[in-house]
Amino acid sequence: MKNNRYIVIVGCGRLGSHLANQLSRAGHSVVVIDSNEATFSDLSPDFSGFRVSGDATQMAVLREAKLNKADVLIATTHEDNVNLMAAQVAREVFGVPHVLARVFDPKREEIYAQLGIRTICPTSVAAQMFLQAVADDTAEQKGSQR
Amino acid sequence: MKNNRYIVIVGCGRLGSHLANQLSRAGHSVVVIDSNEATFSDLSPDFSGFRVSGDATQMAVLREAKLNKADVLIATTHEDNVNLMAAQVAREVFGVPHVLARVFDPKREEIYAQLGIRTICPTSVAAQMFLQAVADDTAEQKGSQR
Repeated sequence: MKNNRYIVIVGCGRLGSHLANQLSRAGHSVVVIDSNEATFSDLSPDFSGFRVSGDATQMAVLREAKLNKADVLIATTHEDNVNLMAAQVAREVFGVPHVLARVFDPKREEIYAQLGIRTICPTSVAAQMFLQAVADDTAEQKGSQR
Repeated sequence: MKNNRYIVIVGCGRLGSHLANQLSRAGHSVVVIDSNEATFSDLSPDFSGFRVSGDATQMAVLREAKLNKADVLIATTHEDNVNLMAAQVAREVFGVPHVLARVFDPKREEIYAQLGIRTICPTSVAAQMFLQAVADDTAEQKGSQR
């Protein structure tokens, strides 16, 4: 049984570096790709994976990250187009079984779903949580007025 | 019993406008503040609240939004400092009972908590969801290998 996964993360911003650190710590083999090498400084000292410097929409860069070996690809950049491109290539060209992408524009989630890409939209999630918090506060106030 | 709340939303970006539309639709009295009037175009045609154009770190602007009447303030801008400032002033000066803020830097969440401000960090939430998705995929694969 294989617990250790080969995980490629596109983008080493706040989300990407956090995921890379956590997944590396959990014992997975992690490769992080970012076109801006300076972002790699957000990787923690105990990060045991690899850093690939380059544009993740370029085949050569994805090959360097050994995407063909990957169990999981996570696209985390701030650009929906970059995430969509990297996710699609991972799925169609490299046959990566699990492809996840951050998506900023909720309207795009349907397109991704049709392409077999699992998405997480931080804006939708945050909105949901704020609406829930307002609902909770309202309920709490009602309770205390009884 | 009062179901209708007076809610002031700072920032009319993707998150702010979404919340404004939803909360207005739910019957609340909503005021949205943004320094960039162009963002108000993201409000839906049935948005029944008010738009205040200005910098939410300025007292005059917050007064114009009648923050003293507010039951809830939600700070949603892309600037942690703006959100913190607006949230703090709402709490301390205007005595708004429920203050929620988006925070990008997870390290700041503790400061907010000490100030009695409830925070939601989209990056942390998204990271949690991605890690869960990877864990689910791993579990699924284990199951199918049995």
